Amino acid sequence: MNPDITRERQNATFDVEKLTHLLDGGPEKTRRRREIESMVFSDPDFKEEDPNFLSRSERYDQAVKKSAQMILKLREYGIADPDEIYCYKNMVNGNHHEAMGLHFVMFLPTLYSQCDPQQSRKWLPLAESFQAVGTYAQTEMGHGTHLRGLETTATYDPATQEFVLNSPTVSSIKWWPGGLGKTSNHAIVLAQLYTQGNCHGLHAFIVPIREMETHIPLPGIVVGDIGPKFGFNEVDNGYLKLENVRIPRDNMLMKFAKVEPDGTYVKPPSAKLTYGTMVFIRSMIVGESFRALAKSCTIAIRYSSVRHQSEIRPGEPEPQILDYQTQQYKLFPLLAMAYAFSFVGQYMRQTYHRISGDINEGDFSELPELHALSAGLKAFTTWATNSAIEVCRMSCGGHGYSRSSGLPDIYVEFTPTCTYEGENTVMMLQTARYLMKSYRQAKEGQQLSGIVSYLNEPMHQRVQPQPVAARPTVVDVNDLASLVEVYKQRAAILVDLAAKSIQQELQQRKSQEDAWNNSAIDLVRASDAHCHYVVVKLFTDKLGEVSDTAIHSVMSTLALLYALHGITKNSGDFLQAGLLNVPQVLQISARIKELLSQLRPNAVALVDAFDFHDKKLNSVLGRYDGNVYENLFEWARRSPLNSTEVHESFHKYLKPLRSKL
Amino acid sequence: MNPDITRERQNATFDVEKLTHLLDGGPEKTRRRREIESMVFSDPDFKEEDPNFLSRSERYDQAVKKSAQMILKLREYGIADPDEIYCYKNMVNGNHHEAMGLHFVMFLPTLYSQCDPQQSRKWLPLAESFQAVGTYAQTEMGHGTHLRGLETTATYDPATQEFVLNSPTVSSIKWWPGGLGKTSNHAIVLAQLYTQGNCHGLHAFIVPIREMETHIPLPGIVVGDIGPKFGFNEVDNGYLKLENVRIPRDNMLMKFAKVEPDGTYVKPPSAKLTYGTMVFIRSMIVGESFRALAKSCTIAIRYSSVRHQSEIRPGEPEPQILDYQTQQYKLFPLLAMAYAFSFVGQYMRQTYHRISGDINEGDFSELPELHALSAGLKAFTTWATNSAIEVCRMSCGGHGYSRSSGLPDIYVEFTPTCTYEGENTVMMLQTARYLMKSYRQAKEGQQLSGIVSYLNEPMHQRVQPQPVAARPTVVDVNDLASLVEVYKQRAAILVDLAAKSIQQELQQRKSQEDAWNNSAIDLVRASDAHCHYVVVKLFTDKLGEVSDTAIHSVMSTLALLYALHGITKNSGDFLQAGLLNVPQVLQISARIKELLSQLRPNAVALVDAFDFHDKKLNSVLGRYDGNVYENLFEWARRSPLNSTEVHESFHKYLKPLRSKL
Repeated sequence: MNPDITRERQNATFDVEKLTHLLDGGPEKTRRRREIESMVFSDPDFKEEDPNFLSRSERYDQAVKKSAQMILKLREYGIADPDEIYCYKNMVNGNHHEAMGLHFVMFLPTLYSQCDPQQSRKWLPLAESFQAVGTYAQTEMGHGTHLRGLETTATYDPATQEFVLNSPTVSSIKWWPGGLGKTSNHAIVLAQLYTQGNCHGLHAFIVPIREMETHIPLPGIVVGDIGPKFGFNEVDNGYLKLENVRIPRDNMLMKFAKVEPDGTYVKPPSAKLTYGTMVFIRSMIVGESFRALAKSCTIAIRYSSVRHQSEIRPGEPEPQILDYQTQQYKLFPLLAMAYAFSFVGQYMRQTYHRISGDINEGDFSELPELHALSAGLKAFTTWATNSAIEVCRMSCGGHGYSRSSGLPDIYVEFTPTCTYEGENTVMMLQTARYLMKSYRQAKEGQQLSGIVSYLNEPMHQRVQPQPVAARPTVVDVNDLASLVEVYKQRAAILVDLAAKSIQQELQQRKSQEDAWNNSAIDLVRASDAHCHYVVVKLFTDKLGEVSDTAIHSVMSTLALLYALHGITKNSGDFLQAGLLNVPQVLQISARIKELLSQLRPNAVALVDAFDFHDKKLNSVLGRYDGNVYENLFEWARRSPLNSTEVHESFHKYLKPLRSKL
Repeated sequence: MNPDITRERQNATFDVEKLTHLLDGGPEKTRRRREIESMVFSDPDFKEEDPNFLSRSERYDQAVKKSAQMILKLREYGIADPDEIYCYKNMVNGNHHEAMGLHFVMFLPTLYSQCDPQQSRKWLPLAESFQAVGTYAQTEMGHGTHLRGLETTATYDPATQEFVLNSPTVSSIKWWPGGLGKTSNHAIVLAQLYTQGNCHGLHAFIVPIREMETHIPLPGIVVGDIGPKFGFNEVDNGYLKLENVRIPRDNMLMKFAKVEPDGTYVKPPSAKLTYGTMVFIRSMIVGESFRALAKSCTIAIRYSSVRHQSEIRPGEPEPQILDYQTQQYKLFPLLAMAYAFSFVGQYMRQTYHRISGDINEGDFSELPELHALSAGLKAFTTWATNSAIEVCRMSCGGHGYSRSSGLPDIYVEFTPTCTYEGENTVMMLQTARYLMKSYRQAKEGQQLSGIVSYLNEPMHQRVQPQPVAARPTVVDVNDLASLVEVYKQRAAILVDLAAKSIQQELQQRKSQEDAWNNSAIDLVRASDAHCHYVVVKLFTDKLGEVSDTAIHSVMSTLALLYALHGITKNSGDFLQAGLLNVPQVLQISARIKELLSQLRPNAVALVDAFDFHDKKLNSVLGRYDGNVYENLFEWARRSPLNSTEVHESFHKYLKPLRSKL
């Protein structure tokens, strides 16, 4: 054990284990998580080389192998609870993704929810026994977020009782679905349904794409891998071009909408059911933000406690880089953010589970707010985390750039969350749409419920931004409740500003749609402020649940740092609205420096509490024992370019060059 | 040619070719650049597969091959001017780096500048004929920026007249030098010189590391590749462990310091000479920031002009995504920044060349300012560009994540500039040191020259931040000269704030060093504001040189957008200092929206003017002809995972799985 990191742990003022329980949701959950982890890490079948040393094809191969093994092991161990399966797979996959992920996350769930009884009897046994390995093919080369724009067609032919599927243009080629390129032999294809000469919009069809015995693509199917990406090397994101592919009528998923044998179209009863899945996935992504951020902070803070560099005081030994104020200023606000996002993630999951019962009973009343919140928080947390991972990486200096740090992998595997399941700017605008609707309702005197109820509060004072000194200020910058209040008021003011922008545009005779587009900057800003308020509020609320005094103290410091740092980064908003005055902004800067010093002795303990197993972290810099340099050397020596002393290029190019000069 | 992009080009209000000349520095430079480009692109020897389709070893192999070819071709074509060599290599290397780069950038220049005449006669012919291929081994595993901390030792043994080199600890292993792992047979090793029992600090030694005929590592040398990184796959960044390696006395570079045969140490006359190289390299990095940013903007803006998505007005066809205000707000400020950095890069190069003549004649008077400026601007431009590349990538939605977009490559190859040649935070603090010194001199009544002379201006009004409404405001937010003035005043105020923070710390009986560290956040902020002022100023100054009316108009719009966008992003600073009032800040937000609309018709033309050849850009999304989708499909089909229809993993894992369930 590196003595620096041992000393850090001795300086902690709280019980790390208790904080881990708080993060896991109780000691029993921590115990079970570790039990599952040790199943994975003691399993010789999951011993593997660092994927960074492998070629793309080898990485994919290794991932398929692991996918197949996991299926068998989960059955063998009888792990069936979704949370436990998630935990198990998470450990096996490390910082990477599962080759067959879409089969479990999209193919099977879609079959479960959209097959009629007869279809279930046919397809579920095939899919559950992996005779049929499937994916979900929605996105096309030319169309992502905007589903109505999808071009793939499924035209019903009553003569043969078949659908004929086509990719009529290059841009209509299915593009991006995970597992589509090489792994799957079936795809659920989303296509525009045509029957009896009419288009009925998007519907889902089960399309066999590879022959089940030989895995060879079926006639009319052009399928393959879309090529190398920034990350996701384990996953064969694929393309699929359909050329007059015929499938039987009952390959259309018919639980809701139907096409009868003669081609008569029968409408679905309601469209709200798919809404819930989206909310669930976006809520899960908030949790992913926490985990990626927590891993990055763990690596950067542990490394900063064992790395010595330069000098603060001449003649003294090189200090730990964590003693530099600039390093603390980079990392501690991110650590605070990681805790904030952890509690936001817990809240989103709990809320989802609470209201999904209502949804199953047909009560959708809380869904719009959760839908709006999950969209905005997905964007807010993924954007913030995305930048934060890179700050962590660069805070490790040159070694952060080595794949051995783990940080490049964390970044490239995480960054797609900003785009998939709803592009972030689009997400922010969805939240804004809900805020604008709520704002109008409030203006009309309607009493709002839930998080947006602040829009009911009198805001005549806030409508016109005022000079900073003109309003008495009652904010106590050391009081979290007071800070929640100013974040709330900032959100209210920015919602108001966006609404006013739309009104102004309308007054200039713009259409509703152009007014919206011409106010989009303000709308995104309003959503961002709304989400920021929610995060500060949830973090503050969480403190009420913390009974342990020592943990309460350090969590309060983190919450305060999170709130104050957010203010300094957006001080223009708070000053502009007259929510804070100039002396307060200066006071906040000074207070932040104090909070950094206060957190310094607990920094390593606070990342230890995330309790990432070394094998999960897969980072030489972030090792629990702090023995970075020996292991960096050992890792480098295993790298494939060192498998020979002399690279063949010497004989091919360098030596011959001499004689040519 | 994609009709969308053709229409964009028809809408431009200025002559693209003339703007290209402005960027290149004149029509003759543009002509010659294109001539060199066509030498490369018409050369069948440089036809190659996308490196993203190759393994690490194949990429390295291909890079060595190209390095060797370039040496021969440059001689064949008689290209000898450093700028032209740079241009040629730049084209050959595309978005990647040169395997033998350090030989040219560090090994040879160090020999030229630090060999005594006798050493020159021995080593230059060897190095120039590539018998000796070399690198520059300074950084160690445990030590980067802080040179005094380096641990490698060179101990003089008068008995044999040799130096004995050692890596006494794991952390002292040389780590990161480019070309060290596999390519080089020599290294210039920086080591602490010990002779006659005393340490004389860092000196440079020529150390043979591989046998010249066989390329096998010499006794006592442990050398290899440091393993995969985020990018730089073409470069064998290496490690070097020295175990009692003996080299003759005259392998120490002796132009300045010397060790005599008996071990007597002779001091060098001056240490300022190496200072100039650092300034040069950092100035060059500002130019790299421009190029990486300009490439990213080219890709994102061209793609945004051919990508159609979603709807603004219902019932109308999907609009080009460049018509969304949010997309314009993401990209146009970055486009403005690219132009800003281009002119800053030009200024830095010109200034360097102007004063390097003085330096050669022993006049170092302007060097400290240039040194401070190059450090700060290196950090300012690389940080901004680093984030901007990722904004560009994500603005391309999912396809930005594909390696075919070129953006992942641009990012991973660029991001090390934030760390190497001086870690950015350290660079900002170096600039701050100069600002603090200048501030003290100004306080003492000394008249400052150069860019910091604003610190002489009376600032009693600005010392105490004031309520926003308390001061009459004279800023015209549409007038660039007026905006340069507020940026200057903001810098002055933040320099003052940082100086005050240090004073306060000192008053609390802190040491000078602790006072500095405890004010580091303020110091970085002051440097950042200083650099921001310089950039706005240089952009504005450049407009004076633009005679073409149409170009002047569009450049003025960009400069205004750059300045105003910077204000909104830092509005707290300007409000806090009373430099702007609230109505002005609101006015600026509205003005920015107008500027976005104004730039919209010129956006594609403005990136066309950067004149990146498609082969240099290497981006399917950024193609000049806008034919994205066909080429995306074509690129994907060439990807190695598609070389077989059925991947072996099906037979190895997926099919056997069925029988095990």
